[in-house]
Amino acid sequence: MQTIHVPVQQAYDIFVERNLLSRCGEMIHSLCPASTCAIITDDHVAPLYADVVEFSLKQSGFHTEKFVFPHGESSKSSATLLNIYSFLCQKEITRSDCLIALGGGVVGDITGFAAATFLRGIRYIQIPTSLLAQVDSSVGGKTAIDLPEGKNLVGAFKQPAAVICDPDTLSTLPEKFFIDGMGEVIKYGMIADKTLFEQLCNYDLSSVHQHLDEIIPTCISIKRDVVAEDELDTGKRMILNFGHTLGHAIEAYYHYGTYTHGCAVAAGMCLMTKFCGSPEIYHQLKTCVERYQLPSSVPASIPDLLSLCGNDKKRSGSVLRYIVCDPVGNAEIRSDSLQDFRKHFHLT
Amino acid sequence: MQTIHVPVQQAYDIFVERNLLSRCGEMIHSLCPASTCAIITDDHVAPLYADVVEFSLKQSGFHTEKFVFPHGESSKSSATLLNIYSFLCQKEITRSDCLIALGGGVVGDITGFAAATFLRGIRYIQIPTSLLAQVDSSVGGKTAIDLPEGKNLVGAFKQPAAVICDPDTLSTLPEKFFIDGMGEVIKYGMIADKTLFEQLCNYDLSSVHQHLDEIIPTCISIKRDVVAEDELDTGKRMILNFGHTLGHAIEAYYHYGTYTHGCAVAAGMCLMTKFCGSPEIYHQLKTCVERYQLPSSVPASIPDLLSLCGNDKKRSGSVLRYIVCDPVGNAEIRSDSLQDFRKHFHLT
Repeated sequence: MQTIHVPVQQAYDIFVERNLLSRCGEMIHSLCPASTCAIITDDHVAPLYADVVEFSLKQSGFHTEKFVFPHGESSKSSATLLNIYSFLCQKEITRSDCLIALGGGVVGDITGFAAATFLRGIRYIQIPTSLLAQVDSSVGGKTAIDLPEGKNLVGAFKQPAAVICDPDTLSTLPEKFFIDGMGEVIKYGMIADKTLFEQLCNYDLSSVHQHLDEIIPTCISIKRDVVAEDELDTGKRMILNFGHTLGHAIEAYYHYGTYTHGCAVAAGMCLMTKFCGSPEIYHQLKTCVERYQLPSSVPASIPDLLSLCGNDKKRSGSVLRYIVCDPVGNAEIRSDSLQDFRKHFHLT
Repeated sequence: MQTIHVPVQQAYDIFVERNLLSRCGEMIHSLCPASTCAIITDDHVAPLYADVVEFSLKQSGFHTEKFVFPHGESSKSSATLLNIYSFLCQKEITRSDCLIALGGGVVGDITGFAAATFLRGIRYIQIPTSLLAQVDSSVGGKTAIDLPEGKNLVGAFKQPAAVICDPDTLSTLPEKFFIDGMGEVIKYGMIADKTLFEQLCNYDLSSVHQHLDEIIPTCISIKRDVVAEDELDTGKRMILNFGHTLGHAIEAYYHYGTYTHGCAVAAGMCLMTKFCGSPEIYHQLKTCVERYQLPSSVPASIPDLLSLCGNDKKRSGSVLRYIVCDPVGNAEIRSDSLQDFRKHFHLT
């Protein structure tokens, strides 16, 4: 088993091993002496993994409760959150109990926010079951829900008591979601690990599976190192946003429908490198991204995408900050006025 | 001006002075270089003080926005919270802006929770305008909303950037609300300050007004000392709950209608002292409480009230913890099984 220690203020460990799901009860028991574990999950994940998790928890002496909500980003809403609160009240969950977030990013984000706020904070354990959630959402302590006005507008920083990653759960993941996660995996190589990037350039969508035991802890460790330096997201953590400036614009342009997050990030990384990086790195990145059936571009025009970056900018300050990786493995934060930024894209 | 420093992790100052409201802009400007101040208040307080606050903020160069919701505990709901979030989105409030909680406890609690969660946390300033809010809610960092299932079930610990207390606002407070606050003021004397308690025994509802400049900072300092020792409410802070074990039961028994919080706490302190403390302290406390037109008892029977304490207990652990002050100025946390606790009240 690989253990990654996350030394933030409320420090915790991330455990990565195949078949860990069936042993989660004993692990949680040693970490978190709760009486009841309330499992929060969605209707995609519940039929696959809720039983094995519940069985393991019961074997370790926990009382369990379970709340299942419809899968998908539209569930990351205040309506689902209020339903979770009602469920927790109804089951008389107290501060000595524990929530279990069993699922992908949506489940992790909303359960984490419920844990941050119910009774002003109770413990929670993350069991991420998607590649994206394992390499991305399990580190950083960011929890959130969406508002009608936009994504992740309401949230809190809340660290889990532990994260349990079982790469075996990825074998049941529909390929579309696996590809989605690979977008972020490639990002980690680009921003901080040339060796990882080169490995990814040699694997493909099929062969990469046998290397996940290594790749997942590598990605988590990269994010851990960045987050530990900047827990409250005021500086260096921004390098994790490589590909996200344009990626968010792509998601927004297509109303979060056409491109998954990972696909949008992949195209965002390629476009950013094409216009702001070196041609050879762009070529390597484009080839790598396409190996995993990720898009290296989108039909939307650059001016349309940049106009959406402008909106994003208004929310964060007076200049646009963005990330360029050159050479591979080294992320640089650059700042430009929106006008100067547009010039890189040959726009005035 | 009296300044009370609150040395919690996100340290801040509480400023107490008459007529401070009209100078709040310059104070906030020096503390919190925001571009926009979004004032959150209710329809009782807005007509009295929103203009003077807004004027002062504008004079100091702030852009201002204002959100007014209906007064009363029923507004401390998820519905009001979602309306506040929408308002903040609509006004394009960013992390470089600041919320201003202008009002009593409900305004402070819900604005604080909005500030804790909108964009994962933005700054806020408290301007408490009721006696209860000035002596109680302005210290401790507890923010919350109610759920249909109970009060304060969802919340966060969030420290304000500063608290601005203007005792002049209390002169416009309906007497009922002033009396409400006196319940908590007497509590501070009982748990930690014999001199304060003895002063209160000499003043009355009319004469106490001229001593508020002294009394308010005294109460705040007591709470500050307790909270600084126990920021996350895991131990000593419990002494602030003197009178609250039975007080909460009284509020619940009467469905939060007949007795205000301060009245319920006053009766709760008296009943607890009558059955678990010494007769002479009970007599002193009862006399003091009645000087301020606060109840020293309620018509509800002791068994009915204790059955509601039982419910409360379930949410906090396996034993009932409660506070007894004997001698005056010295609070003691006692623990009993519910059964043993009932014996003090001559019940089996």
